[in-house]
Amino acid sequence: MPPPVKKKKKRPWHQRFTREPPPASPPGTLLLESTTKPRMFVIDYSPEVVVEKEIHDLDEAIEFLTDDRPSITWVDIRGIGHRETFERIGRIFKIHALALEDIVNVPQRPKADAYPDHHLVIARMAQSNGNGGICTEQIAILFGPGFVLTVQEESDRDVMEGVRERIRRGGGSIRTRGSDYLAYAVLDAVVDGFFPLLERLGERLEDLELEVPRSRRPMSRQIHDLKRDLLTLRRAIWPQRDLVNNLLRDESPLITKETRIFLRDTYDHSVQVMDMVETFRELSSGLMDLYLSTVSNRMNEIMKVLTIISTIFLPITAIAGIYGMNFRHESSPFNMPELDWYYGYPYSLMLMLGSVVGLLIYYRRKGWLGRDDLDEE
Amino acid sequence: MPPPVKKKKKRPWHQRFTREPPPASPPGTLLLESTTKPRMFVIDYSPEVVVEKEIHDLDEAIEFLTDDRPSITWVDIRGIGHRETFERIGRIFKIHALALEDIVNVPQRPKADAYPDHHLVIARMAQSNGNGGICTEQIAILFGPGFVLTVQEESDRDVMEGVRERIRRGGGSIRTRGSDYLAYAVLDAVVDGFFPLLERLGERLEDLELEVPRSRRPMSRQIHDLKRDLLTLRRAIWPQRDLVNNLLRDESPLITKETRIFLRDTYDHSVQVMDMVETFRELSSGLMDLYLSTVSNRMNEIMKVLTIISTIFLPITAIAGIYGMNFRHESSPFNMPELDWYYGYPYSLMLMLGSVVGLLIYYRRKGWLGRDDLDEE
Amino acid sequence: MPPPVKKKKKRPWHQRFTREPPPASPPGTLLLESTTKPRMFVIDYSPEVVVEKEIHDLDEAIEFLTDDRPSITWVDIRGIGHRETFERIGRIFKIHALALEDIVNVPQRPKADAYPDHHLVIARMAQSNGNGGICTEQIAILFGPGFVLTVQEESDRDVMEGVRERIRRGGGSIRTRGSDYLAYAVLDAVVDGFFPLLERLGERLEDLELEVPRSRRPMSRQIHDLKRDLLTLRRAIWPQRDLVNNLLRDESPLITKETRIFLRDTYDHSVQVMDMVETFRELSSGLMDLYLSTVSNRMNEIMKVLTIISTIFLPITAIAGIYGMNFRHESSPFNMPELDWYYGYPYSLMLMLGSVVGLLIYYRRKGWLGRDDLDEE
Amino acid sequence: MPPPVKKKKKRPWHQRFTREPPPASPPGTLLLESTTKPRMFVIDYSPEVVVEKEIHDLDEAIEFLTDDRPSITWVDIRGIGHRETFERIGRIFKIHALALEDIVNVPQRPKADAYPDHHLVIARMAQSNGNGGICTEQIAILFGPGFVLTVQEESDRDVMEGVRERIRRGGGSIRTRGSDYLAYAVLDAVVDGFFPLLERLGERLEDLELEVPRSRRPMSRQIHDLKRDLLTLRRAIWPQRDLVNNLLRDESPLITKETRIFLRDTYDHSVQVMDMVETFRELSSGLMDLYLSTVSNRMNEIMKVLTIISTIFLPITAIAGIYGMNFRHESSPFNMPELDWYYGYPYSLMLMLGSVVGLLIYYRRKGWLGRDDLDEE
Amino acid sequence: MPPPVKKKKKRPWHQRFTREPPPASPPGTLLLESTTKPRMFVIDYSPEVVVEKEIHDLDEAIEFLTDDRPSITWVDIRGIGHRETFERIGRIFKIHALALEDIVNVPQRPKADAYPDHHLVIARMAQSNGNGGICTEQIAILFGPGFVLTVQEESDRDVMEGVRERIRRGGGSIRTRGSDYLAYAVLDAVVDGFFPLLERLGERLEDLELEVPRSRRPMSRQIHDLKRDLLTLRRAIWPQRDLVNNLLRDESPLITKETRIFLRDTYDHSVQVMDMVETFRELSSGLMDLYLSTVSNRMNEIMKVLTIISTIFLPITAIAGIYGMNFRHESSPFNMPELDWYYGYPYSLMLMLGSVVGLLIYYRRKGWLGRDDLDEE
Repeated sequence: MPPPVKKKKKRPWHQRFTREPPPASPPGTLLLESTTKPRMFVIDYSPEVVVEKEIHDLDEAIEFLTDDRPSITWVDIRGIGHRETFERIGRIFKIHALALEDIVNVPQRPKADAYPDHHLVIARMAQSNGNGGICTEQIAILFGPGFVLTVQEESDRDVMEGVRERIRRGGGSIRTRGSDYLAYAVLDAVVDGFFPLLERLGERLEDLELEVPRSRRPMSRQIHDLKRDLLTLRRAIWPQRDLVNNLLRDESPLITKETRIFLRDTYDHSVQVMDMVETFRELSSGLMDLYLSTVSNRMNEIMKVLTIISTIFLPITAIAGIYGMNFRHESSPFNMPELDWYYGYPYSLMLMLGSVVGLLIYYRRKGWLGRDDLDEE
Repeated sequence: MPPPVKKKKKRPWHQRFTREPPPASPPGTLLLESTTKPRMFVIDYSPEVVVEKEIHDLDEAIEFLTDDRPSITWVDIRGIGHRETFERIGRIFKIHALALEDIVNVPQRPKADAYPDHHLVIARMAQSNGNGGICTEQIAILFGPGFVLTVQEESDRDVMEGVRERIRRGGGSIRTRGSDYLAYAVLDAVVDGFFPLLERLGERLEDLELEVPRSRRPMSRQIHDLKRDLLTLRRAIWPQRDLVNNLLRDESPLITKETRIFLRDTYDHSVQVMDMVETFRELSSGLMDLYLSTVSNRMNEIMKVLTIISTIFLPITAIAGIYGMNFRHESSPFNMPELDWYYGYPYSLMLMLGSVVGLLIYYRRKGWLGRDDLDEE
Repeated sequence: MPPPVKKKKKRPWHQRFTREPPPASPPGTLLLESTTKPRMFVIDYSPEVVVEKEIHDLDEAIEFLTDDRPSITWVDIRGIGHRETFERIGRIFKIHALALEDIVNVPQRPKADAYPDHHLVIARMAQSNGNGGICTEQIAILFGPGFVLTVQEESDRDVMEGVRERIRRGGGSIRTRGSDYLAYAVLDAVVDGFFPLLERLGERLEDLELEVPRSRRPMSRQIHDLKRDLLTLRRAIWPQRDLVNNLLRDESPLITKETRIFLRDTYDHSVQVMDMVETFRELSSGLMDLYLSTVSNRMNEIMKVLTIISTIFLPITAIAGIYGMNFRHESSPFNMPELDWYYGYPYSLMLMLGSVVGLLIYYRRKGWLGRDDLDEE
Repeated sequence: MPPPVKKKKKRPWHQRFTREPPPASPPGTLLLESTTKPRMFVIDYSPEVVVEKEIHDLDEAIEFLTDDRPSITWVDIRGIGHRETFERIGRIFKIHALALEDIVNVPQRPKADAYPDHHLVIARMAQSNGNGGICTEQIAILFGPGFVLTVQEESDRDVMEGVRERIRRGGGSIRTRGSDYLAYAVLDAVVDGFFPLLERLGERLEDLELEVPRSRRPMSRQIHDLKRDLLTLRRAIWPQRDLVNNLLRDESPLITKETRIFLRDTYDHSVQVMDMVETFRELSSGLMDLYLSTVSNRMNEIMKVLTIISTIFLPITAIAGIYGMNFRHESSPFNMPELDWYYGYPYSLMLMLGSVVGLLIYYRRKGWLGRDDLDEE
Repeated sequence: MPPPVKKKKKRPWHQRFTREPPPASPPGTLLLESTTKPRMFVIDYSPEVVVEKEIHDLDEAIEFLTDDRPSITWVDIRGIGHRETFERIGRIFKIHALALEDIVNVPQRPKADAYPDHHLVIARMAQSNGNGGICTEQIAILFGPGFVLTVQEESDRDVMEGVRERIRRGGGSIRTRGSDYLAYAVLDAVVDGFFPLLERLGERLEDLELEVPRSRRPMSRQIHDLKRDLLTLRRAIWPQRDLVNNLLRDESPLITKETRIFLRDTYDHSVQVMDMVETFRELSSGLMDLYLSTVSNRMNEIMKVLTIISTIFLPITAIAGIYGMNFRHESSPFNMPELDWYYGYPYSLMLMLGSVVGLLIYYRRKGWLGRDDLDEE
């Protein structure tokens, strides 16, 4: 039974891209510096019986693998980094040095490699991290006659609980089929695990579409984050599609014809995921354009406010300034006779009002400031 | 007879992308939680006779399918989600579990799969929703010797009324050909159903082209919506083209050589739809550029208004301010002797006028404010 | 002899994209609702003799087609839509229903289809419309042993006058070769007809390049129109290239080896047209960027004018305002003693001048307003 | 010896794209309306002897071509358009009418065509025009056993002087190899001629990168010109790469296995040119973005200046305006008692100072105007 | 032992693209004008013994190459340009003139060429230059039976120290395998050398992502530099992937089947590098959009400040101006009776306050200035 879901600590995203073995290391160098052993689970099933237990020593797994019963043994390792364990696993399952490197040194690009005795599939599970974003985690699936080995990057969560449940309940035909079908079921769960994420990204996208033209808060960061999450998914799903296609076309006897039919279905699903990711990417690009035009429109609104204020108050100030001049009427009849007019003050107020209204009418005529600008925006 | 067209309730668009079966479900899991039975129609025709009726029990369909007459039976199911009905359909038509999943769990990516006894085509009808946008709906076409089964996602509207009418009237040669021809006719109706939508999108595009440089209302949202509708069509038509191509190249005896000639025509039409969708997408991208440059131009206009107002009134205010200072002429002959000049007031007004005109002439000379800016914009 | 060139009425461009037969029509439905008969011309030539006449009844064409002389008969129909005529043509030339639909229901995507007795080429002529834009018109070329049938969408203009002239004059070897050579000559004229248009688009593009950085008028609309015209050409030429390539590779005996050499030349020309269209498209995209940056630059200029005006007049107004305050010097020796200074007024003017000059120098030092801004822009 | 380099007159660039033969001309129509004969040069060499001379009559060339010595004859024609000369050349070298059209009617898209007796290569030399831009010129290379004919579009400059020099000096092995090697050497000189141009474009690009963030002059035009020059190079080099590839794969006995090894080298160089052109194109696109963001940043700076000026002087003006009001203190003790205060004037000045400083502090707190804005920009 | 790492002088980046041999040079022309001899190192190893020394004369290398022991001799040349040395190397290793040109005339596009006696691989090492950017350096790897020759462009740094260390320590199986394995090990070190650089670029990218929305400094230059560095890496890694693929598919007996398995691993790594470079490129494009929207948002903020200042002080100034007019109340009871009101001054102050508050409320109602604008930004 998997441990409860913990909120993951936020690593800087660029670390997700880096491989740490120093350049010029010999091939097959394992990055194994952890001192905690991974958690290990075994499910051993035949059509009639299911045994499921957490093991603490690989010897227990060997018992299941080498017993005489025609059962399928699924060994699930959660957490990488413990040297002793993985070197032992390499010997038990006779894994090629380069294949073991691919299992242990994360991240690898998803791929499927055929070896004489088994197939190795490197895939990538996508999961929601605690705070609305996406994180991906490597899973290696090694399958051969009668056994499946899965190695997950981290120990806390996975998308395979449904597969385990089907084995326990004997739902579908999973208990009657071979290890290739189990490997397919795990891979299918990995690919189908993208759909809930895409649904959530679709919601974020749609929320942003509604919010962008209305909100006054800067939204470009959120759009950028969304785009990065889509890019993360894209990097995970593109090679995964090729991987499934490779398995489909592989002529190895380890994969039965019936399983191929089911893999075809997984292939269709991975194409559908890719299709949705690309569509969402186009939509989020359009969203950035939408946002930029919204920002420009708001700028226009602000400028119009400023222009209207200036249009109203600058003429008033100028005219008031004129009649505030101190030319002395004693010196000349030309010196501001208006100041002595009987209706001088009302006349000056009318002059102010007239200038403002005149300007506004003039703008309107010119089409500079339309109906919309003043009233309806 | 199809029910009258109802205005569809607006679902959030992102739901159109999501598949709901939880990850790691066994393959072939059907999402069937509806309790209302779908509407079911049967048309059974031979060159001489046409029988058309709505049925309420699949037994009625079985009668048509198993009678001895060499007629073509078209069973049309409208509405998905009723478990009992679809499980029964699966048994009647001997549909593979994965195929039935594709029929029932919408949305699927359009595709054509060949099975030993029948072909399954998953296609996507595009229709106008009530309020000017686009909605798409899945249609599954299963055809084999003597029968065609179509399963539509929703019960209210479809694009196949024309096909039914041709069967009823015996127009063209439809009644004399096999079930593959009927399947072609349905598929052709689906593809041709994109043309009226494209016509309407073309109108919206052309309206926007005319409106964008003139209107003062924000238009970026409308352009964005148009782009999203085009994206929706694109997602529907691209795989549809491949689907038709697959049928064309399929060497199954279920598709006659004559029908292939007609499918070639459908292929041409789907290429033409794709071509138009891509052209419209380019035009709508250009439209966003056009809109952004219009917004920038309007900003320039507003700024010019502001600058001209400032140029007119700030110098007047400044000069008026100077002659409004209270330096006392009693204290010094230098203290504002202008206030006592005989033509002091007219001189000050001239000074104001001169500054303003001088500035405007200066700008004009510099080319800062051209003829256009003042008069002709 | 073709009728004089008339200025075409402007249809909304989106109609150029639409096919009007309702979805689900039977295949081969002809859109023929016109009541005016098309104009029909026949040129019948052998190395020695040329007969050219306008005919009013298809019977006249049949005479030419069925006479015993080894001549080539070119029937040229101008204008589509007259049901009776086209149904008769279909019977005379034994045209497949789907092929006749392609000829009559415009627009079709350009393509070449091989039939047992003849080849059908659907091409698209591009022509300048009266007012500087581009319009395209469909032409169908059907050729078989001893005859060529061309059907043009409209009756008024075409690009084939040069071909007719060569037949009349016996220029080149056209009169000594077969109907496939005539079909090539027509197709070559169609492709070469793109060059004068591209030349004119190139001129528009170059004019815009020169005008955009100088003009103060909004130019984005013109750039957008140019882009749309280029898109129109692109939609016409891309499938045309494939069409010529298909003819080249077709192993039909209807096309002689010598004609293939000439078709190779047509292919090169269509590649060259495509190449130029793509180059022009890139240039016009760059032009939009150029325009947007010009608009932004002009905005900067306007803002600088406003800033300089404010910098000059706001300090003057503020200082004048201070010395326009009415603090009474009778009440206190602190109350504006400047008003009684002997050089009070000159001092205040100096203060104003000093503030303005000081500010301008400060800006200059800060690099906010460089030499360019004040003097050389 | 080539004539001295003359500064070329600037033709409008769009003419470089146009072909002038009217549509529907017979194939093989030559555009030959010039009355000045081209300059003609012959170099005839064998391992021992080199003869080099300018000829004025093609008969002189025929002598070299038909002499018994096993020498290679290189005829170099500079300038196209003289009908008599080129018709004679067509007859001498037995050139197919369509091939002669390609040689004479410039511009053609670069290509390599194999004929029974010779190969024709149409290539494009790129050269710097006098004023920093790029111009391209067509060169046709026709080679067969014992001869090479080159036809250059213009008479004044070429990139082949180095090849001539190698023949004269006997440098490398050029004199001991066949005509295919000479053709390779010319083609290699054409491709290598792109490198100095790319170097100069790289300099312009780097200069612009340094200047764009600093300069106050509009730079978008220069970036646009650079992009156009890169587009010109791209149009020239893309088909040239295919051309070299075609020669490489051609199984004609006219090209020896050793020459193919050298052509492989030319192919590598043309790929390298393409690679650099594409890289430069990406960089120049980024440059436009850089420029636009620089313009926006400068706008922000100007707006900040304006805001700070307004913040300083508007409050002063407002307060000074208040104490410049003429409310009569005789009428009421409420009417501006400040005017009689002992420290009234200093108080008002403090009020002004306080408002300004208060506003600036407030902005700073709000983060509207940071440290950078006031001091460090 | 390699010399200590020196900080490299900054060359203009465009020089990295240029090849300097003048066009029309004979093929195989070497650009060798340096007078300082390169540093030369030899490592000669067999499973039992390792000899490592710096040599000063190629004769010493010849001894190692021609001794009878079945050892692998690795000659490492650091620095190119010394004519005598490289001509001698060409003779010793029997290098084809064109191959030697590729080794010496940097930069070449990475590629792998097979020769009868050896393979030549031209690769590109990417390294951090001293100041945070990227520089690349050519390395040529020539390997044949029993020897590997590497030629590095510069003498100071390389990525192969780890390989030397593995030879010295006998780590992994390197000492027991052939020269093809050593060549693989060098190539693998070159490809793996991209990972630390990508890690650093990822850090820069993530730093910029955090800084862009916050910082007030112009950042477009830094984004542009990042994009250029990514472009540099892209130009280096794309052809490198093809190169590895070519080696993989090469059927030469010089490459053993086991080495091919390891090359497959190198291929996977180069695909992973490409994948990361493309992802980073997309992210940095998005970053520029993010930056531009940040700049626009700041402009909006500044404009809002200006508008609010104007809204507050312009009405005050206008009203104060009105009551500062000098209309004489002696002349008329209409002339500014307010000046004599008992509460005239307070009334005028209220009027000012009322205008300002009224305007602000009006804006708020209109939605022009929301809550965010005034308080929360």
